[in-house]
Amino acid sequence: MLGVNEPYISGKELKYLKESIKSNELSIGKFKGKFENKIKQYCKSKYVSLCSSGTSAIQVALHTLGIKENDEVIVPTFTFIATINAVIYNKGIPVFMDCDDNCNLDIKKFNKFIFENTFKKGNNLFNKKTKRRIFAVIPVHVWGGLVDLSEITKLCRKSNLKIIEDAAESLGSKYKIKKLKNRSSGTIGDIGCLSFNGNKIITSAGGGAILTKSKKYHQKANYLINQATDKQFNYIHNNIGYNFRMSNINAAIGLAQLEKISFYIKKKKLINKFYREFFKNSEHLKINEFPKYSNNNYWQTTMIINLKNPKLVIKKIRSSLIKYGFSIRQAWHPCHMQIPYKKFESYKISNAPKISSRLICLPCSSFLKKKQLLKICSIISKNIK
Amino acid sequence: MLGVNEPYISGKELKYLKESIKSNELSIGKFKGKFENKIKQYCKSKYVSLCSSGTSAIQVALHTLGIKENDEVIVPTFTFIATINAVIYNKGIPVFMDCDDNCNLDIKKFNKFIFENTFKKGNNLFNKKTKRRIFAVIPVHVWGGLVDLSEITKLCRKSNLKIIEDAAESLGSKYKIKKLKNRSSGTIGDIGCLSFNGNKIITSAGGGAILTKSKKYHQKANYLINQATDKQFNYIHNNIGYNFRMSNINAAIGLAQLEKISFYIKKKKLINKFYREFFKNSEHLKINEFPKYSNNNYWQTTMIINLKNPKLVIKKIRSSLIKYGFSIRQAWHPCHMQIPYKKFESYKISNAPKISSRLICLPCSSFLKKKQLLKICSIISKNIK
Repeated sequence: MLGVNEPYISGKELKYLKESIKSNELSIGKFKGKFENKIKQYCKSKYVSLCSSGTSAIQVALHTLGIKENDEVIVPTFTFIATINAVIYNKGIPVFMDCDDNCNLDIKKFNKFIFENTFKKGNNLFNKKTKRRIFAVIPVHVWGGLVDLSEITKLCRKSNLKIIEDAAESLGSKYKIKKLKNRSSGTIGDIGCLSFNGNKIITSAGGGAILTKSKKYHQKANYLINQATDKQFNYIHNNIGYNFRMSNINAAIGLAQLEKISFYIKKKKLINKFYREFFKNSEHLKINEFPKYSNNNYWQTTMIINLKNPKLVIKKIRSSLIKYGFSIRQAWHPCHMQIPYKKFESYKISNAPKISSRLICLPCSSFLKKKQLLKICSIISKNIK
Repeated sequence: MLGVNEPYISGKELKYLKESIKSNELSIGKFKGKFENKIKQYCKSKYVSLCSSGTSAIQVALHTLGIKENDEVIVPTFTFIATINAVIYNKGIPVFMDCDDNCNLDIKKFNKFIFENTFKKGNNLFNKKTKRRIFAVIPVHVWGGLVDLSEITKLCRKSNLKIIEDAAESLGSKYKIKKLKNRSSGTIGDIGCLSFNGNKIITSAGGGAILTKSKKYHQKANYLINQATDKQFNYIHNNIGYNFRMSNINAAIGLAQLEKISFYIKKKKLINKFYREFFKNSEHLKINEFPKYSNNNYWQTTMIINLKNPKLVIKKIRSSLIKYGFSIRQAWHPCHMQIPYKKFESYKISNAPKISSRLICLPCSSFLKKKQLLKICSIISKNIK
């Protein structure tokens, strides 16, 4: 059975693994620096710290930026649960926002929330209702399509609201908008977080990275990732950090994968194009558009089921695909509706639940061939008749 | 420069990596199950869950067993900071205990603390001074030498005090005591935690494992490690979990290493023997004994400097060794004296700071040859004259 997004090994993965083994560099070693440098260069990010996952990247990002207990963090409800968990790990409080039709943070509603529901006092922004400080916003670049950060960065700077970009899915996506032209996702906010999980556009078998242009944040993030070690020789730890290092072995794989990212993006674009072409005249099935203001990595192509009983249709499609070894996944259940997060504030959310119940993630592994895509499309078509 | 404990690759590491690459199994794959089964078999543990580090193993263990905010956890002060951090991640409160001359939790003082400073109410144990519930104790098997758990298990069971063994350093160590004869470290308490960090007796480049005989704990730990996923297809998460999975790549390395553990333990024993023989008549330098009641893995041989100014002597030894490419590390600075932990309760601690200031960890990589060990010993000897 193929997962929705499987890794595609097509470069020097094994060569670099052999080198790591030969030089006895498993946990630490030269591939960590090499992978970091390659990310720096590829994303045009001044600083990069590798870590154990996209989740740990966001956790460390919030800590690095100085979140305090009971600070509020504005998050989209339409994201993987890890984005929100990272707020909780830091004893923060999520405030949920709706998504737009690209599945990204609804910027209009976000702006409205800031103007109507918050006030500034001293250097900080506060929630009118709860009187709590609002510390940060975490825009998530969903499926690899970018959130338009050109507007909100100004607003956030004015409000001293930190921006942490959850760029777990968007490595390789760049802006076309004049103000942010050619800038990579993850390099606009105060900190950007990448994921190299097995299902991402490139993988290190598991891992993440923290991008920033601030030397201070970079040093603090590195310190926290490495157990907050002040003196290594005699184990002095003046703060409580984490064991969130990426190993040299994982970095070796990540480097080999990053060297081939243009190839993977090309493949992803072709897959998206194939699905779009196939379903362009479909009455009930609609392939989601990616944002127009960015060159996206097309990591995940998704489809909206415009039928009366999407749950049943999705179930049928899924069962049929499984027989041929393909899988799909439904969209995330909106986070503000998940049991641990129901009790938190959510702001005028209407779009996310609608999308969530009708959206499926189509098979998108970069190695899929036309024949396979055709098979997938035919199976889906049959199931809506 | 050689670290104090470097990995020793001597088995099928590369073979298993090649297999993983060939079968496109990076994050998930068959080596995870194989490594888990091998640990089960080797440790005679009913259940095993792989995770991302020894630190995450302890964090998940406490969560799994049901720690509540402000619960107290009894911990040795003489351990790596991660043991204590895991308590804080769970919003618990550490209570620090002294160590004995094997550097392990001082069982006599621990017993005394329980008898004099706690009371039972209902099914729980409470701290007389703070009135807080005491939830668990985390004995750490320091340097691979086992804590004598034969006595305290009875006491803990009676007091409903959970035991989490921090067996990060003691994989392969087994009890000789009648009651626990041949049982592996990590299998006595409610949960045992292993580490496969690069410096451990075997490594997966980075990783850990959770051992338990309880199916309930095993299932909960697995659930928490995998983002608390209740329904994978449409992303339902009824609890707040973690991204603490071990990747298939790391498991492949771990398996190859575990297959050779007897060889590594043999090497470690020889290294310990060499150091002991060399310094047996030394007036000022004493190689620490491992506990007599266990067959230890001899992971880390340590030395006590019995001279007036140990700090200066250690500095001199260190500088001389560095010139020849060898390194040493001083013992852990006791956790109750570290800045983040000074404010917490500590119980009659006197031994740990004394040991800490005089103890060094000697080079112990399993691949060290007699010639190298001789060189190390000669350099150390010269520096105390």
